[in-house]
Amino acid sequence: TPDFDQTEHQHIRYNPLRDMWVLVSAHRMKRPWKGQVEKPSEEYVPRHDPSNPLCPGATRANGMVNPEYDSTFLFDNDFPALQPDAPEPGVSDHSLFQTKAAKGVCKVMCFHPWSDITLPLMQVSEIKNVIDKWAELLVDLGATYPWVQIFENKGAMMGCSNPHPHSQVWASNFLPNEPRLADRCQREYYRDKGVPMLLEYAKQEIQRKERVVVENEDWLVVVPYWATWPFQTLLLPRRHMLRLNDLSNEERQSLASIMKRLLTKYDNLFEISFPYSMGWHGAPTGHQLAEDMSHWQLHAHYYPPLLRSSTIRKFMVGYEMLAQEQRDLTPEQAAERLRNLPEEHYKTKAD
Amino acid sequence: TPDFDQTEHQHIRYNPLRDMWVLVSAHRMKRPWKGQVEKPSEEYVPRHDPSNPLCPGATRANGMVNPEYDSTFLFDNDFPALQPDAPEPGVSDHSLFQTKAAKGVCKVMCFHPWSDITLPLMQVSEIKNVIDKWAELLVDLGATYPWVQIFENKGAMMGCSNPHPHSQVWASNFLPNEPRLADRCQREYYRDKGVPMLLEYAKQEIQRKERVVVENEDWLVVVPYWATWPFQTLLLPRRHMLRLNDLSNEERQSLASIMKRLLTKYDNLFEISFPYSMGWHGAPTGHQLAEDMSHWQLHAHYYPPLLRSSTIRKFMVGYEMLAQEQRDLTPEQAAERLRNLPEEHYKTKAD
Ligand SMILES: O=P(O)(O)O[C@H]1O[C@H](CO)[C@@H](O)[C@H](O)[C@H]1O
Ligand SMILES: O=P(O)(O)O[C@H]1O[C@H](CO)[C@@H](O)[C@H](O)[C@H]1O
Repeated sequence: TPDFDQTEHQHIRYNPLRDMWVLVSAHRMKRPWKGQVEKPSEEYVPRHDPSNPLCPGATRANGMVNPEYDSTFLFDNDFPALQPDAPEPGVSDHSLFQTKAAKGVCKVMCFHPWSDITLPLMQVSEIKNVIDKWAELLVDLGATYPWVQIFENKGAMMGCSNPHPHSQVWASNFLPNEPRLADRCQREYYRDKGVPMLLEYAKQEIQRKERVVVENEDWLVVVPYWATWPFQTLLLPRRHMLRLNDLSNEERQSLASIMKRLLTKYDNLFEISFPYSMGWHGAPTGHQLAEDMSHWQLHAHYYPPLLRSSTIRKFMVGYEMLAQEQRDLTPEQAAERLRNLPEEHYKTKAD
Repeated sequence: TPDFDQTEHQHIRYNPLRDMWVLVSAHRMKRPWKGQVEKPSEEYVPRHDPSNPLCPGATRANGMVNPEYDSTFLFDNDFPALQPDAPEPGVSDHSLFQTKAAKGVCKVMCFHPWSDITLPLMQVSEIKNVIDKWAELLVDLGATYPWVQIFENKGAMMGCSNPHPHSQVWASNFLPNEPRLADRCQREYYRDKGVPMLLEYAKQEIQRKERVVVENEDWLVVVPYWATWPFQTLLLPRRHMLRLNDLSNEERQSLASIMKRLLTKYDNLFEISFPYSMGWHGAPTGHQLAEDMSHWQLHAHYYPPLLRSSTIRKFMVGYEMLAQEQRDLTPEQAAERLRNLPEEHYKTKAD
């Protein structure tokens, strides 16, 4: 047998944040694609549309009128998946039929008064404003709830039903599956090695370089060694911090800057407004604010679905749903492509 | 607070097969949908297309010519994600950077010589023939490999790139994430309760009735109590069996019959060829053929993406990817809709 070459030979890699493996089969990029082709993302979005419930001055589903906001704007989701007052289900009569109450709140935060703008096209100071509001929300909702999930679904391909730039926040009285897993994995690593897993991981990636996409004095973006989505990235701080509200003013500034750089590269990859779901994971809140959470390190995940072009996505289907996630190019190949892209947005580039 | 009503009040339910929870927020079905609408599934597919590499007599990517087959047809995937001879990667230099070799084989099995037919429109005897081949493949590949994943991606929405009816089989030298989880959960339940989890679960569902979709003398289909996809189902045997090749001839016959009934209901739900990914989970094979696997119960999962109509799907995105899966109608509501649908296919119904 020939020598192992990761761009040619199938292998599995371990994800220590989820205690799962991913199958990497790089040469699958070569197969012809005759399957579903996505609609190209909508080009024209009016800057202001009075019938769009996310716009300044618009009327929402519940009859409330939005203020004429000029930066960010926060409101309660009109169709919340979680509500503060859900009654307790009775006690389960069988261990295979277990239910618990789900209490919480769902909020929507618009990033900007314009509908035809996205984070990479906003100014760094405007992005910083978004980060400040996220941190504030975390403190507010985290006082009550053990988990506050801040996330953005961007693009119709990611189930986003409104092009106006916005994120969501769902806070719950339970620790959801994914953070529960991340908590366990980070806790075990810290117990065994005495150092926070993702602090050590960032240190290693800075040395190894091959998966780094962008970095600055406080932050680092890599295609993680165990990435499942083709151009998935992980945004990590260089110093140990538990939650978004731990960031200094300078760290918020440098975070805004690195987000703009990453998202500009994403848009430049296929010269479209790049779809993704992203979200923040930090130490749990609520009653866990008082506990030692040193094993946690704040981080953000970006999960973009596209694989080959603006219209060909990766399908996480049969084998992925039933057996294990599989990717068609190596994380190093993805990082190199992103790293080599310009940091000037294709839409604002002088010809 | 009012009494708990599962069709009105958010709650979480426990999935004992995956040790995870799902958020159930039934009233979210009421929210208006202005997001992405799927292309209606292609209506016209020619029965025979000599340029389709899955058709009898066609030439495949590697130059091989398919036989003029008249029932099922098995061949090696021309772009395999797993190969038998992948070399060993070296030993990892750090616990956060772990790689292992992935060895295996990927096969494709056509169900029928015609491209314009699907399982629900095939005869029971033809479906039985597919089941016989699956069982044969499991024995062949299971002699070497610890996991043999049999699955079907149906429809362009599920990343299927060829309308010709077919399934895939990916066998690997490792136990993938999902079966590893199912193995652990079933093992723990069996150790604690002394009965296979899914045997007890089927017994309970037969009594409770509200989640049953179809049943016959040997089999049962339910929308599981912990379903995440809107119309997800779980196909279970009534008696304890470990693997597909344990089925008697009568059980294969009755399996073919219940598959036809389930898939006909699926197609009748929105009067389209219903997309899904499905696959079989049974006790691991390879060196585990010799071990006591009594905790396992054979079962099949069906994961269909559609939510409201033939063109509106459920998006498992931001919250679902980062926190926890969430559904917009209760499993009981989904089961009731499926149960009440006719068992005659809308395409063959006399007007
Ligand atoms: O092998 P196919 O049908 O070309 O590909 C399809 O199924 C595979 C296995 O679930 C997935 O990895 C691919 O993303 C999907 O497009
Ligand atoms: O709340 P939205 O944006 O209407 O809905 C979107 O995000 C939710 C949270 O990830 C998902 O549950 C929905 O399936 C998706 O369409």
